[in-house]
Parts: sequence; structure tokens; C-alpha cells
Amino acid sequence: MSVVTIERKVLQKNDTLAAANRERFASNGLLVLNIVSSPGAGKTTLLEATIEQLRDRARIAVVEGDVQTDLDAQRVAKYGVPVVQIVTNGGCHLEANLVADAVGSLDLDQVDLLLIENVGNLVCPANFDLGEAMKVVVLSTAEGADKPLKYPAMFRKAAVLIINKVDLLPYVSVDVAEIRRHALQINPYLVIFETAATSRLGVTEWCDWLVAKLTAGHA
Amino acid sequence: MSVVTIERKVLQKNDTLAAANRERFASNGLLVLNIVSSPGAGKTTLLEATIEQLRDRARIAVVEGDVQTDLDAQRVAKYGVPVVQIVTNGGCHLEANLVADAVGSLDLDQVDLLLIENVGNLVCPANFDLGEAMKVVVLSTAEGADKPLKYPAMFRKAAVLIINKVDLLPYVSVDVAEIRRHALQINPYLVIFETAATSRLGVTEWCDWLVAKLTAGHA
Repeated sequence: MSVVTIERKVLQKNDTLAAANRERFASNGLLVLNIVSSPGAGKTTLLEATIEQLRDRARIAVVEGDVQTDLDAQRVAKYGVPVVQIVTNGGCHLEANLVADAVGSLDLDQVDLLLIENVGNLVCPANFDLGEAMKVVVLSTAEGADKPLKYPAMFRKAAVLIINKVDLLPYVSVDVAEIRRHALQINPYLVIFETAATSRLGVTEWCDWLVAKLTAGHA
Repeated sequence: MSVVTIERKVLQKNDTLAAANRERFASNGLLVLNIVSSPGAGKTTLLEATIEQLRDRARIAVVEGDVQTDLDAQRVAKYGVPVVQIVTNGGCHLEANLVADAVGSLDLDQVDLLLIENVGNLVCPANFDLGEAMKVVVLSTAEGADKPLKYPAMFRKAAVLIINKVDLLPYVSVDVAEIRRHALQINPYLVIFETAATSRLGVTEWCDWLVAKLTAGHA
């Protein structure tokens, strides 16, 4: 049995489990986001800002995925929402079965919005469906405008692109219009937001869009 | 045959090929660096700065690894050194056999320093030896000080840490002393440089260290 065959089987098994997750989330009326990015693009800060803005408007829970440590879960737990940490122990992405196990400890009837923070990796998580309604890819302006072209799979599979750390634009030789152009070249359906999550800039626009999705029943 | 067994076999096979690469590089008196980082940490700019400083002191060649595009190879080729591009087509890391194929098109007798730029990924490339003398991990200050703790394997396996984009320190809430402390907590043997590759800050210190390695026969 070749390695390629094994890989295909792993992905098929994951897709089956992801479909089961998706059905379970739908029956609970949950909106589930799979938040992906390179390490250090600002996923956790964006989560904090999102929870801060939305916790009075929606019941939120978080699944944190990390290669090591529960540092991010500790950060998010301070905001008073339920958090489950998955430590992959070297694993480069979350898989549907890990998420199924993690949400087992949550009361999903008491949750409207489930935010899954994936491992920081712009490559591997693109291949693993978790049963989410959509992937949200976060790109820091400091990473440069060529990233959608160089890591196209993630941008192709995402529904939303959040261009984060726009407050650094004066100090990096990156053109945000070029990021947008490259991203839309890979995926013309991307909904794009610009944020500086640390100072909460642009977070309201993103959160209002999310609330509209929640209200519309994730249509 | 389980997935874990297959993974172990893949790694074993890679280690065998990496050992062959290492022997080949040694017989040619080559110093080979495997340069790794998250996407957008500044590997390519660091390469450009390094070539600029060292091309009169050493014969340099480059192997560029990318998921897609030859944008980086185009950038490096402008500096007049031989470049071979490996496009992994979705693959999240370079492997020893890809490097063996790539260097087949170089005249290694005419090279002193081979710089391999890996795929932007702080997780997977840690497991795949390419036959290099050392891994050099590049971390952008914009990524935050917790990265060595959250992605420890790469920092454990690297000999050198280059903290890049130090020019952004006034604009990000990151303490470079904390990056150092976390990195040395994971790997006390790390040699650490601080650079701003775009403005060439700190590049001389790094290049002088490299020249000393070259002169010492990579001891």
C-alpha cells in the first residue's frame, strides 16, 4: 500500500468525520468557524477582540488547537467563555476527530458561535475539513503581499480573509491593495476585512458581518 | 500497516537519503544551511542580504522550496548566483530526495555555501533532515514572543535563530529579550542574531559568523 493511498484514506476518513461534525453542529444551530493562519498572524488576539464585542450578542465557545502549550486557551479563558484546548503534540493541523472529541465536553445547546483556532500553519490545515461552516484565513500585513500566490490552497478554501496588523502598514513595504488583488486572483469569492486586532481597529465591521450570518441562520 | 508505521518509514527513508546528501556535501567541502520559518518571516530577504554581503567572499548557490510559484527564485536569481527552484505542489516541507534531485543540476565543486530555503512552515520541516550542516530558524518579531514555546521542535533542532524585523519592535508589543529567553529555554545551544534584513541591519554580524564557519571547515 503506497503512501499516497494511505494519505487518501486519511483524508477520506477525516471528510467522513467532518460531515458528521457538520450535521451535529447544524442540528444544534451552531455557526462554526475554522480560523487558520501562519504562526503569529494574530488569530488569538482576533478571537479575544471578537469575543469582547460579541459575548453580549451571542453565546460563544472556543476550541484552541496548538502544537504545544495551553497559552492561547489561558488567554481566551479570561474572557469568561468556555474553552477546550487540543494539544496536537507535534501535529501540524487539527483533524475532525480531535474536534469531535473536544466539543464532547461542551454543552452545544448553549452555544451559538463556535470559534476553532487551528494550529499556526498556512499549508496543512487547508486539507482537513473540521465540519466548519467556513474557514477564516488571517494574514498579517508583515507577512508580505505574495502569500496568497505562494500558499494558494488555504486562500482558495477560505470564505473570509482578514488582513490583520494594518497598523504596521506604515512600517512594512507592503501594499494592502496588492494583498487584496493576489487573494482575489486565487479566490474571487473571498469576503475581506482589514483589522488591527490589538487596537480593535476594523473589528466592529467583522463582528457585524458575523452577527448578520448568525441572524440569517448561516445562509 | 498503520499510518504511524508508514510515517515512520517515510521518515526513515528520508533520513537515509539525507545521510547520503550529507556525505556528498562533505566530499565537496560544502557548507549547507536549511533555512526555515513561518511564511513571511523574511527568509528570502535574508538570503538576498546574505548573498549581497558574501558573494565576493564565497561561491554561493541557492535551492528555493515553495508550495507554489517561483517568485523567490526570481528574486534570488537577480543576485547572479545559481538558483534551483523546487515547487512542492502543495507539499508542506522539503525532503532529502527533492534536494538531491535539485543539486543534481548544480556543479557542487564550484560552490562553497549552499543555502536551502525551505517551505514557510514552522511545524513540518522540523522532522525532515535534508543533509544540511545546520538548520537556521528565522522568526519575525511581528510573530510574537511565545512562538518558541508553541512550536518547540523547530527551535530544538535549529543551531541558529535569526530574530528578524527588529525594526518593527517599536510598533509591536513584543519584547526581544522574552523571545531570547523562550528560545533558550527550548534550546540553550542556539546561536542568536538580531536583524532587519530589509535595511540590512545586523546582517554583517550574521555573515561574519558564517564566514568563520566556512573558514573553519564547518567545525
